[in-house]
Amino acid sequence: MSTGIFDIDPWAVSVRGLDPARVRLVESVMATGNGHMGMRGNFEEGYSGDSHLGTYLAGVWFPDRTRVGWWKNGYPHYFGKVVNAVNFAAVRIAVDGVPVDLATVPCSDFEMRLDMRAGVLTREFRCRVAGVTLRLRFERFLSVVTPELSFQRVEIDVLEGEGVLEVTPLLDGDVHNLDSNYGEQFWAPDPTWGVGASALTFQTVPNPFGTPRFTVTAAMEASLSGLDETSRWRDEWSVGTTWSGPVAPGSAVVLHKTVAVVTSRDREPDVHLATTARLLGDAALQDHSAHRAAQAAAWAERWQLADVEILGDEPAQQGIRFTIFQLLSTYYGEDERLNIGPKGFTGEKYGGATYWDTEAFLFPMYMSIAEPEVAQSLLRYRHRQLPQARHNAAQQGLPGALYPMVTFDGVECHNEWEITFEEIHRNGAIAYAIRHYTEHTGDRSYLEGEGIEVLVEIARFWAGRVHRSSSTGAFMIHGVTGPNEYENNVSNNWYTNYLARWVLRFTSATLSELSDQRRAELAVPLEERERWTEIANEMYLPYDERLGVHVQHDTFLDKALAPVDAIPEGDRPINQHWSWDRILRSCYIKQADVLQGLYLFADDFSQEQISRDFDFYEPMTVHESSLSASLHAVLASSLGRHEKAMELYRRSARLDLDNYNQDTEDGLHITSMSGSWLAIVQGFGGMRVGADGLRFAPFCPQGWQGFGFSVRYRGRVISVQVGPESTEYRLVEGDAVEIRVDADVVRLAVDSVVRHRNVS
Amino acid sequence: MSTGIFDIDPWAVSVRGLDPARVRLVESVMATGNGHMGMRGNFEEGYSGDSHLGTYLAGVWFPDRTRVGWWKNGYPHYFGKVVNAVNFAAVRIAVDGVPVDLATVPCSDFEMRLDMRAGVLTREFRCRVAGVTLRLRFERFLSVVTPELSFQRVEIDVLEGEGVLEVTPLLDGDVHNLDSNYGEQFWAPDPTWGVGASALTFQTVPNPFGTPRFTVTAAMEASLSGLDETSRWRDEWSVGTTWSGPVAPGSAVVLHKTVAVVTSRDREPDVHLATTARLLGDAALQDHSAHRAAQAAAWAERWQLADVEILGDEPAQQGIRFTIFQLLSTYYGEDERLNIGPKGFTGEKYGGATYWDTEAFLFPMYMSIAEPEVAQSLLRYRHRQLPQARHNAAQQGLPGALYPMVTFDGVECHNEWEITFEEIHRNGAIAYAIRHYTEHTGDRSYLEGEGIEVLVEIARFWAGRVHRSSSTGAFMIHGVTGPNEYENNVSNNWYTNYLARWVLRFTSATLSELSDQRRAELAVPLEERERWTEIANEMYLPYDERLGVHVQHDTFLDKALAPVDAIPEGDRPINQHWSWDRILRSCYIKQADVLQGLYLFADDFSQEQISRDFDFYEPMTVHESSLSASLHAVLASSLGRHEKAMELYRRSARLDLDNYNQDTEDGLHITSMSGSWLAIVQGFGGMRVGADGLRFAPFCPQGWQGFGFSVRYRGRVISVQVGPESTEYRLVEGDAVEIRVDADVVRLAVDSVVRHRNVS
Repeated sequence: MSTGIFDIDPWAVSVRGLDPARVRLVESVMATGNGHMGMRGNFEEGYSGDSHLGTYLAGVWFPDRTRVGWWKNGYPHYFGKVVNAVNFAAVRIAVDGVPVDLATVPCSDFEMRLDMRAGVLTREFRCRVAGVTLRLRFERFLSVVTPELSFQRVEIDVLEGEGVLEVTPLLDGDVHNLDSNYGEQFWAPDPTWGVGASALTFQTVPNPFGTPRFTVTAAMEASLSGLDETSRWRDEWSVGTTWSGPVAPGSAVVLHKTVAVVTSRDREPDVHLATTARLLGDAALQDHSAHRAAQAAAWAERWQLADVEILGDEPAQQGIRFTIFQLLSTYYGEDERLNIGPKGFTGEKYGGATYWDTEAFLFPMYMSIAEPEVAQSLLRYRHRQLPQARHNAAQQGLPGALYPMVTFDGVECHNEWEITFEEIHRNGAIAYAIRHYTEHTGDRSYLEGEGIEVLVEIARFWAGRVHRSSSTGAFMIHGVTGPNEYENNVSNNWYTNYLARWVLRFTSATLSELSDQRRAELAVPLEERERWTEIANEMYLPYDERLGVHVQHDTFLDKALAPVDAIPEGDRPINQHWSWDRILRSCYIKQADVLQGLYLFADDFSQEQISRDFDFYEPMTVHESSLSASLHAVLASSLGRHEKAMELYRRSARLDLDNYNQDTEDGLHITSMSGSWLAIVQGFGGMRVGADGLRFAPFCPQGWQGFGFSVRYRGRVISVQVGPESTEYRLVEGDAVEIRVDADVVRLAVDSVVRHRNVS
Repeated sequence: MSTGIFDIDPWAVSVRGLDPARVRLVESVMATGNGHMGMRGNFEEGYSGDSHLGTYLAGVWFPDRTRVGWWKNGYPHYFGKVVNAVNFAAVRIAVDGVPVDLATVPCSDFEMRLDMRAGVLTREFRCRVAGVTLRLRFERFLSVVTPELSFQRVEIDVLEGEGVLEVTPLLDGDVHNLDSNYGEQFWAPDPTWGVGASALTFQTVPNPFGTPRFTVTAAMEASLSGLDETSRWRDEWSVGTTWSGPVAPGSAVVLHKTVAVVTSRDREPDVHLATTARLLGDAALQDHSAHRAAQAAAWAERWQLADVEILGDEPAQQGIRFTIFQLLSTYYGEDERLNIGPKGFTGEKYGGATYWDTEAFLFPMYMSIAEPEVAQSLLRYRHRQLPQARHNAAQQGLPGALYPMVTFDGVECHNEWEITFEEIHRNGAIAYAIRHYTEHTGDRSYLEGEGIEVLVEIARFWAGRVHRSSSTGAFMIHGVTGPNEYENNVSNNWYTNYLARWVLRFTSATLSELSDQRRAELAVPLEERERWTEIANEMYLPYDERLGVHVQHDTFLDKALAPVDAIPEGDRPINQHWSWDRILRSCYIKQADVLQGLYLFADDFSQEQISRDFDFYEPMTVHESSLSASLHAVLASSLGRHEKAMELYRRSARLDLDNYNQDTEDGLHITSMSGSWLAIVQGFGGMRVGADGLRFAPFCPQGWQGFGFSVRYRGRVISVQVGPESTEYRLVEGDAVEIRVDADVVRLAVDSVVRHRNVS
């Protein structure tokens, strides 16, 4: 069974047959990563057809030139990009000098398979090259045990014909960013390379922006049976070893290639060669199958906490596992200097490493499926970048801290003013994540330590960013872009104003609860807190009494309002068919805006209010952000609209696997990967965590036999199995606890199962 | 007497002494042009110090790549730029191989002088090169008699020392645009060059945007007395002739260099060489002094109509003449395919050739100071580009025609969305110029011919661009940028809405007045006109009853309103000191916005209303557009606020000569050049032309003894001499006419002078 492109399998993604038109798409979906590095599913032997060769190293970036035409004060000076780095998986294969290249030689029985349970990518095919028929099998994985290591195995069997087979594992540094604005090469070979080992060192070229340069060293250890080693060679950009010899039917060649990749983020360049030698030496103590088993074991451990099981819907099962797999391949919290880029290690589009997506959409999932340290790393990432966030605010002439829309190092590097310094609601989401962490873990130490330092600076920003209206005297926030990026530069975006008010109040309340000593350290003057209170109390929050809805922004109701159904056939997605002018003036909403606020602050509003707002805004929402539908699915679930919830869930469930947006070839939508998890766990499972504890309100979607997931909560692991009629709750780990299920209070004790009838 | 940089002289601009820090500024101010071509005041012999070498040919442009980062549907694909073209004024001079280069050899008695009456630029200095002291005198002018010709004369006298003097007049095509986004060379030498003559042909390199390539040929004729010709040489990018020989004190050399420059805009490339040979041959029939005399005579003719005389204020006198001189050097209406670029021939900044500045600020001046054909050429330029304007509207998914913000060929090429498809009020100004022309000339033939075709398409655009508000039912215009570019993407900009309404009504009224036949040709359906009427009648025009003012746009009054005086010391101009975020959110206005509407439609409003709006908005206006102050001076004059008017006039009077904005080094503010004329003639002179005829309401500013100007009006020339107490009106040419002066009707007959006492 297949929805078209990839085979359906609960634990694997595979594709049979090679379609040259889909190579880029397959490369994206077959991407692998281990937090430290990652690569697209590029073919080891090279592919001269349409392809996107991409290897990326976490935290290694380059500030690309971006200035053309008009530039104004406060615009960022560069656009930070992940650097396409040394292609360390390359293995050139040739027969009688003719390369194995699936763009030019015929192949059959092609199959590529990503084993999500074990974290291993395999590929096999037959091909005929220079009169010789070969069967090739490739296996590779990036170690989640030792993230600086990559392991590969290549088997070549000769089926027919005779010739000279040549196999060349190599490291190839002559790679370019597809998205370089000026077509520049971001790397330069390091002149100190080449002392003996099969290693290469590269450094990012100098930049005029004062951002750090990175040095990267890749070193290779290769062994091959079945051919003779004929040369070890190197040139400016690459290094490799060649084995060759005559082959005939029955000849079999097996190559093992291990690569260590280290960067100046972690190791001083002068120890790179020694470090890679040690890493490769240690790795050589075990054979390939042992490393493979360790990889599978490490992934099994991750899955134990993170897996979501869906009964009776294999495509959905595959979809949710794929998103969890790719997300955990991108980030598992080991390094608090890192964050989760929009394409992870699967592409270059959108540049940058860090978006507000992290706090708004990914944070809740990491809170539930991983140790608290993983989510805390994401919070600490922002705390580390507080100086840069202050810099961003100062760039706009504002006090406090403005966290960036897009960044690597905390300095804003997105180049659209309407986003950069207008889509400032992100600054609230970053504060919200601190509250979320505190409520979810029940641990106030982060909040009272680093957290309050971040909160104070964000509160200061908001207090500086508001103004008193000359006409009404209320505090207002002009010139913002809300979560709905299909409008720009609006005034009094309800979501932004509400969030800003919450930040001011929450920060002030938190300060009140601190010890005297800690409060003294922070030294926030009383007048400043009084000012925050004044602003919060007099903040303007647009509301339309006639319609009984929160108003998206000041002039939204003056638009020509119409439902999405009124959009002419063939005009969707509107961002591909309409001019930006038409989109901006239309009422159509890219992603939840008012509803984003109701999602975050559900407890502040009645069900009736949420229902009215949902009915007003959802019909005008085109969900053209991959982040939109899942959040609406959560809200629809909470309103008891199960069919609507399922309809919305389906839009994010297999976004990349089914290439819904026709752009997966550029890379996966990594920061949307939590979407189906949110829809299932927060939506169908009705899970919420608040100051008052953990709640569920589950239902089993039509057509499913059930679904199950685990949640980490205040030192516990709770497993939830939702069935069509009832739900089982089991405390797998930790102390007994009371939770709420629908309107009831339920007590969970260790290893006892509590069954509760679903309300709907 | 000097205000600092240039000597004060009523008919010349001169500078004494060479200040290396001001070479670029001097080059801008000393620019010369003749409508066909122009160049900055670059030194003929070359200058290796900080300098901006620039030669530009009217209508010759290149579509520069501009896309980086995010680009959305409807954004222009390229940014059109004037191409820095062959440096044809170059004359290399060396002694014993050491070049005369004022950046490296000492000089004295440096003086450069732009004779505005005759249109001639001269420069002289002494310098010591390789032990030889020379006195050099350069003279050059671009012919306004035969605009494809340039004339130069160089005199070199040896004062001390002996050596070998070498003089090389040349054409140098290896020039680059300073503003090229990707540092690209826009020219390629034409491989067919070099058949005998001292000529060079270049072609703009191919572009991927389908815009035309240009071929340019420059040919040189040079003669020199005092040295022997030693070589005629050429290479890929240049061609020249070298004279050399030993010189001693008393040696004198005189060089005459004539250059013809033709382009593929006017002549097919295959006749370029024959054409330049003929032009040079014809020119050789007269000597340099005869050509110089013809140049002076042609300028005298222009001055007769265009001059503004100011008594008792020499800096002001010099200032107004400088702006008129530079404007007429840029454009004199000979070629309706051309328009008036923001820097004319004096620089590259801002790219593009045509801005709405033409219709809004320059058109009224050309209407008054030149034959009607000159202004009509500007109208016909827009009519020619109607297909491209339709293309621009279609790019946004809109009907009718949207004239571009910036263009060469009619296709929009500015790359900021908030300007490109939001600053659409320009589309009204272009319609307004047609009415203005009709009222000023009294001739309806243009209106009823090409004019109505343009009006209909602009009306269609507005009818498609409005929408009915879901909340009030009124027609609204969302998502615009008004003339105040310090706000973007606002809703219901009063000026834009008012102008749109006027276009719909004026177009409909004009259609009613046409002959049946003409109306049938245009075939505008009745329902369409009824729709226009409906929109016009139900257009929302924001007005605040409490304040009694027109409201700039929907949320303007919710800003924190404060006068310009409240801006901290040292923060002005705010566009250099504040972030764009802060500027957008502030109440500060870059240039007239509501007041722009009151200026255009003064007769629609009471003096009290204009006065209230002026008092409300002017104090919040920073006048950081070079177009702003003069218009406010006109309004202040009309309100009888003479001191305020004079204060505002002073800001534009000597903008470039005194380098007020510290950016004249990039080129002159050509499209602002009408500012002081408008302030003097429409402001102090109170001249207005309406359907009801010509009016004056003059006063003599404090400190002036008087001022005089001439106006073309409906086939007449009327000279106006304003004195402290009274004003003399004289009909210089044309039939007797009644005009209004203040509240009186005055009849002017040929050659009789009417004196009228100034009201204030």
